[in-house]
Amino acid sequence: MVEKYNVRTDLALEEKERFESDNVEIPGVLLQEQYDEEKDIRITTVTIETENGAKIMGKPVGTYITLEAPKLIDADEDFHSEISEELLKYIRFLIRHEDMETYSVLIVGLGNRQVTPDALGPYVVDHLNITRHVIREYGKYAVGDAKVKLVSAIVPGVMGQTGMESVEIIRGVVNETEPDFVIVVDALAARSSKRLNRTIQIADTGIHPGSGVGNHRNAVNEETVGVPVIAIGVPTVVDAATIVNDSMENLIAALETSEALRGVGVVMQGYNAAEKYELVKELISPHLNGMFVTPKDIDETVNRISFTISEALNKLFTA
Amino acid sequence: MVEKYNVRTDLALEEKERFESDNVEIPGVLLQEQYDEEKDIRITTVTIETENGAKIMGKPVGTYITLEAPKLIDADEDFHSEISEELLKYIRFLIRHEDMETYSVLIVGLGNRQVTPDALGPYVVDHLNITRHVIREYGKYAVGDAKVKLVSAIVPGVMGQTGMESVEIIRGVVNETEPDFVIVVDALAARSSKRLNRTIQIADTGIHPGSGVGNHRNAVNEETVGVPVIAIGVPTVVDAATIVNDSMENLIAALETSEALRGVGVVMQGYNAAEKYELVKELISPHLNGMFVTPKDIDETVNRISFTISEALNKLFTA
Amino acid sequence: MVEKYNVRTDLALEEKERFESDNVEIPGVLLQEQYDEEKDIRITTVTIETENGAKIMGKPVGTYITLEAPKLIDADEDFHSEISEELLKYIRFLIRHEDMETYSVLIVGLGNRQVTPDALGPYVVDHLNITRHVIREYGKYAVGDAKVKLVSAIVPGVMGQTGMESVEIIRGVVNETEPDFVIVVDALAARSSKRLNRTIQIADTGIHPGSGVGNHRNAVNEETVGVPVIAIGVPTVVDAATIVNDSMENLIAALETSEALRGVGVVMQGYNAAEKYELVKELISPHLNGMFVTPKDIDETVNRISFTISEALNKLFTA
Amino acid sequence: MVEKYNVRTDLALEEKERFESDNVEIPGVLLQEQYDEEKDIRITTVTIETENGAKIMGKPVGTYITLEAPKLIDADEDFHSEISEELLKYIRFLIRHEDMETYSVLIVGLGNRQVTPDALGPYVVDHLNITRHVIREYGKYAVGDAKVKLVSAIVPGVMGQTGMESVEIIRGVVNETEPDFVIVVDALAARSSKRLNRTIQIADTGIHPGSGVGNHRNAVNEETVGVPVIAIGVPTVVDAATIVNDSMENLIAALETSEALRGVGVVMQGYNAAEKYELVKELISPHLNGMFVTPKDIDETVNRISFTISEALNKLFTA
Repeated sequence: MVEKYNVRTDLALEEKERFESDNVEIPGVLLQEQYDEEKDIRITTVTIETENGAKIMGKPVGTYITLEAPKLIDADEDFHSEISEELLKYIRFLIRHEDMETYSVLIVGLGNRQVTPDALGPYVVDHLNITRHVIREYGKYAVGDAKVKLVSAIVPGVMGQTGMESVEIIRGVVNETEPDFVIVVDALAARSSKRLNRTIQIADTGIHPGSGVGNHRNAVNEETVGVPVIAIGVPTVVDAATIVNDSMENLIAALETSEALRGVGVVMQGYNAAEKYELVKELISPHLNGMFVTPKDIDETVNRISFTISEALNKLFTA
Repeated sequence: MVEKYNVRTDLALEEKERFESDNVEIPGVLLQEQYDEEKDIRITTVTIETENGAKIMGKPVGTYITLEAPKLIDADEDFHSEISEELLKYIRFLIRHEDMETYSVLIVGLGNRQVTPDALGPYVVDHLNITRHVIREYGKYAVGDAKVKLVSAIVPGVMGQTGMESVEIIRGVVNETEPDFVIVVDALAARSSKRLNRTIQIADTGIHPGSGVGNHRNAVNEETVGVPVIAIGVPTVVDAATIVNDSMENLIAALETSEALRGVGVVMQGYNAAEKYELVKELISPHLNGMFVTPKDIDETVNRISFTISEALNKLFTA
Repeated sequence: MVEKYNVRTDLALEEKERFESDNVEIPGVLLQEQYDEEKDIRITTVTIETENGAKIMGKPVGTYITLEAPKLIDADEDFHSEISEELLKYIRFLIRHEDMETYSVLIVGLGNRQVTPDALGPYVVDHLNITRHVIREYGKYAVGDAKVKLVSAIVPGVMGQTGMESVEIIRGVVNETEPDFVIVVDALAARSSKRLNRTIQIADTGIHPGSGVGNHRNAVNEETVGVPVIAIGVPTVVDAATIVNDSMENLIAALETSEALRGVGVVMQGYNAAEKYELVKELISPHLNGMFVTPKDIDETVNRISFTISEALNKLFTA
Repeated sequence: MVEKYNVRTDLALEEKERFESDNVEIPGVLLQEQYDEEKDIRITTVTIETENGAKIMGKPVGTYITLEAPKLIDADEDFHSEISEELLKYIRFLIRHEDMETYSVLIVGLGNRQVTPDALGPYVVDHLNITRHVIREYGKYAVGDAKVKLVSAIVPGVMGQTGMESVEIIRGVVNETEPDFVIVVDALAARSSKRLNRTIQIADTGIHPGSGVGNHRNAVNEETVGVPVIAIGVPTVVDAATIVNDSMENLIAALETSEALRGVGVVMQGYNAAEKYELVKELISPHLNGMFVTPKDIDETVNRISFTISEALNKLFTA
């Protein structure tokens, strides 16, 4: 199994694709696909069942549901409403509290409100119907329903603003307020720019920044916060180095295979994968570290998708 | 001792003034004043020493330092810089860690960032130099100083946004990150509109919303969060009912004492304080509950003072 | 016709009420009322037909439609949707372009985005579907409709931020871009706190800050900008002095009429309206000038109503 | 003179560098450099003197002063203060009103406040001392100085929000308020990521988006608005396609020159510049159009530099 160079992605779907060309099955990893042609919505479920599968995938054991919908970037309210319904279905599936009449949930809006593509989590929290304080003060009939859910939310901020890991804040708040489970919403990094703002990933594994690249925040999962953690993420950026890397791989591949360039091909074949990676790395500007790529209309897109996700959550908790 | 009608104030200074006309000492309460005529800065220290004093004052035992400076509302950078220095002095006095080479502190920006006069706490946090994560990762020499302080900060949001009491979030974060002490910054309600945005109160007692009016958030103090809590507050609003109340008291007083209105005076004297309070309350619109009074240029004022306070804190932690 | 003391209101409805107790008709001013009991929506149309009527009312000749709906402060999406439909109806009535297949309109969001109750106009503009640039570049079929409207918008900011009168900016932009008419959206001052955030006024007269109190911005109307100006306003604040004034009038009235206070009554009657006004004015703190009263949850209310108004406008321009 | 592939830059300095390797002079273009080693500040003045020079450079005739200071990205207040002084000097030089006791100036903060790296212009305006309205109402002695400047400012927003070209709004406002000149502040696109947030360009030519790439906003210059236009810009983004392009050029260059790859070199030399450009373009994802690259801490950097620029302007107008 030949792996492509390891570039950052937060999407299990994209990790899976790294192995795709080989068309082999990864032991311990299941893949299921569904495609709604009319709406152009693709649902991919990646289930990592074993620790071995987790190791190969670089992601923890669990279920990752990806919803891909190119029309997510459009300003079509009806379509966003449909996506909310879809989303609601899969979140409910993963929270496994669907049969409970009542439960309490803490929603965490991760990310930096001051950096547009990273503001998804905070924006989702802005639109939520918060009920925990009302129900605690006036009882569950105050919100007109016996099957009520206690919804609380927090926007912890990023480490540069707080001096704390997000997981420290979340664990502290979970210990104090004892929700049945946590939902974290976060902006993700994709490997492919074509997935930006068109994809939503829902996972029952929490968030593991370390599985990506260069980020020393700790994981936010059942192990670290003490209750199950559902993660909802939307890729809004691609690492700058990733985009350059991909393009240069394309160039090398073209050189290797081109009829017209047979001579080059011969020479390039003298390089193994690692050497080619080194060559590429050398040619990428060191200034690209800590840089990301994002679309110019990211403000509108993040606004819209944050609204769509909060709608799904608001419906989920009143259903 | 005849008390004026009980209207809301978060300032110990104003509580003290309720008894002023009688010119008596309150047992267990000390008052010290200093006035810098040149800069027009008045420092008043109210020390509540006994539980009896606390009961009379409606505020817990502790030290309340009030800095009044009419020029705080001006856009004079040099003056704000001087105030930062003054502030720094009194905060250092109250934290009682002044002789420690190193300590860790959590700054909490209370209030609602979305409502201008309540955004003081969040704005102060925006301007802080956060260092805890850097020192934990790279050691204290990374910030170029052995006498380093570990500074962390959080903006918990308000209950309508989070579903949680601020104290729940703060206690959770304190338990996780174990700062030596906490500084909470909050917008306050004054009794007198002439104090708005011209006054800063520093207290070693934490925040006790219950001592004010109609606010069921719990106290944030050493008892509830486990470490000492210093509170820095600036009155940015007056309760609408307070302002009406005060004006009507003035009217009644005028009626009672006016030479021209001797006849009225006679009749009004037939009312005792409680009856007059009832009369006034009846005439205040019920729509004024939950309303506040604030100046039209509150955006500029809150911006400026938040900067002044964060400057004081930044200097304190690097000194 | 005895007038109450002149306090600030931007609502024609409230100007009319000043004369109500006398139950007389004002020459040149028509009043029409409609009440939908089921939805608890009251529509009042004040038509000022003559210059004499305008003089008495302190507002220019024109039509003022007021929609009062106590449930506007609730977070009920369906109700807000109904209000959007109502609003749409009355705006369409006043713009008098209803029979035009195509027109161009400039929406102006007046007010200060940094001061929550004054941010209504800017927030409405945030939610608008802007089309002028698309239609100019790609033609009217680009937006899928031949009956297309060219929608442009601007948030001019307030004089303290720009150094310019709003009318200077608007007139400049109108001269350059030549819209068929202008719609200005602004936060208003009411006289009565019970109308705050529950009332929407639509007028074909533009905005006349001078008709209120203490505001030297110039009028924004057909005369000053060259095209018809529709104004949509929501009262979000009451002048602090107004609230105090009203309460003190109530007190004086109580003193004058109370059986128990007959002696006082006699004396107060020695004062005429002007003298009583002077007495009241003297007793109101000078610090109240430039202060306003607004509810604590103004952030949520302004968010919701701005969305409701922008929905009405978006529907209007695609219908 | 062999040109590199045409990639977008708003910096005259970078246009000049395209020709650098050839070490030739461009007719009609002067270059002056100054370097302060101690502060590590480099000042480069590109003067385009002739229309021919303008054609080669792809930028209009005029003076472009670039200040490069790597320490601009640091949070060092003293250094930012020094940069303000430098900046002030060069802006004063270009405005050519330095000898006037009094003048009026309109500052325009271009860009989208909602997209962090594009918010530079709006943030600069937030920090300005606006005086026009005060001087017009109270006379020039109201601000304590006879040599007073009338400062006004506007944040026009971007076309997607307003439906109007920025130049339409600016021209309208200039016609109405007749400032002596205009200063536009805008975030720029650089070609090299190493210049991001470390460079400030001041030009007396206004803004010419068309000279860059894919942007159909019209120029803002003396010709289009009627008064001289000074432009202050800071590169905060690189076009995504540019970064990929540069890296791939590096790869191709490496292949062509590498000792170890002599065989490849031979074949690549069979391609001319245009053919190589086509090859590269083919391999860059079409999804990169409309995407930009920016650093993760762009919020802090833009905040800091906007403050530095506004300080320079505030000092300029009170000097």
